[in-house]
Amino acid sequence: MTGNFFPEGLERNEVPDVVVARLPQYVRTLSQLLAEGVQVANSQQLGEKLQITPAQIRKDLSYFGRFGKQGRGYRVQHLLDELKQILGLTIRWNVAVVGVGRLGRAILNYPGFNPDGFQLVAALDDNPAVVGEQVGGLTVLPVSSLAEVVNRHQVSIAIVAVPIAHTQGVIDRVVECGIRAILNYAPIAPQVPPGVNIRNIDPVLSLQSMTYYLANGAGEGAGF
Amino acid sequence: MTGNFFPEGLERNEVPDVVVARLPQYVRTLSQLLAEGVQVANSQQLGEKLQITPAQIRKDLSYFGRFGKQGRGYRVQHLLDELKQILGLTIRWNVAVVGVGRLGRAILNYPGFNPDGFQLVAALDDNPAVVGEQVGGLTVLPVSSLAEVVNRHQVSIAIVAVPIAHTQGVIDRVVECGIRAILNYAPIAPQVPPGVNIRNIDPVLSLQSMTYYLANGAGEGAGF
Repeated sequence: MTGNFFPEGLERNEVPDVVVARLPQYVRTLSQLLAEGVQVANSQQLGEKLQITPAQIRKDLSYFGRFGKQGRGYRVQHLLDELKQILGLTIRWNVAVVGVGRLGRAILNYPGFNPDGFQLVAALDDNPAVVGEQVGGLTVLPVSSLAEVVNRHQVSIAIVAVPIAHTQGVIDRVVECGIRAILNYAPIAPQVPPGVNIRNIDPVLSLQSMTYYLANGAGEGAGF
Repeated sequence: MTGNFFPEGLERNEVPDVVVARLPQYVRTLSQLLAEGVQVANSQQLGEKLQITPAQIRKDLSYFGRFGKQGRGYRVQHLLDELKQILGLTIRWNVAVVGVGRLGRAILNYPGFNPDGFQLVAALDDNPAVVGEQVGGLTVLPVSSLAEVVNRHQVSIAIVAVPIAHTQGVIDRVVECGIRAILNYAPIAPQVPPGVNIRNIDPVLSLQSMTYYLANGAGEGAGF
């Protein structure tokens, strides 16, 4: 019951995207442990918190070097610092939000980005009724000023929260402006060129993966 | 460069959660292909759309039986129907939204749930200033009426969009009311008992998995 997990053609020193996607959860869990005064944790303890097997944790971390000694556990602060470094979380990232509808407003007023190093520096919308409005401490600018905004504020990341019909067009413009990381809230999977990363926040997909367990009467299903 | 993908102790006929989590994306892609008039698709074509290797697609689908003939591709309509059945998407699911703040309002007004079989049937909040208000066509009810609401509307799924400090408490109550599928919008990983599924919508985790690529100059990173 083992399987070839890694996509074909993966280079030896490339880290699978699914492993990278788990690292932020490690960071969050390690931060919580540290806040609770835990200084050393083994893969069993981490696994319980993360709902990942200890074997998977050891394997994930092995991509980045040796963090723990056999039988000794991981030093929480050290592992946390290293993972933050690996993930680029010691850097401040400037973010532009494109689309200031209901969802865009919730995003712009969400207090959870800044503590994690993501600074929302610009809000843009194409609706003339919204441009000029103050939302989340920012003055909404027209989408036509995107290139200038990206340049001026050294924006690295765009959060796109526009209706489906406009999503691909807006994402194309975002990419043209040199943005290489996009968080998309529309329930479609937009196309981006190689070298650009996109993550889709899609509640329907999340719901649909839970109905499997409801419909099939099984109780499992990990927490992320 | 192969790895033991499956968690230890997995039963032979259990499907890994990561596979279940991919199936809704298959459903969406197959629906799009059908809308484009495509009647047969091979794993190569599906893989391009999904950014998953053809080998992984064949492996994922093999958990559920044989859908395609070697070299013949998959019949799109047939595979779509089967996957919808497997995922429980032929059933209508009633959903309660707990928390009617900015995010809750965006969720309640989001038009994307109903077409996919998720019916938002109740909105609940503990803020007396919000209870009684009409949001997204629903009258906001107090959280104290949750058990009654779940019963009356046969609610199977809860979407929880409350501040971090209240999240675990609200989720405990949701679980007590018999809900076994929860979509959580707070940026924490709440604890739920075995038999309950929870998915966390967490934009910060998504952003943090992209900064890896920004910080390390690599261009890869899948679309979900």
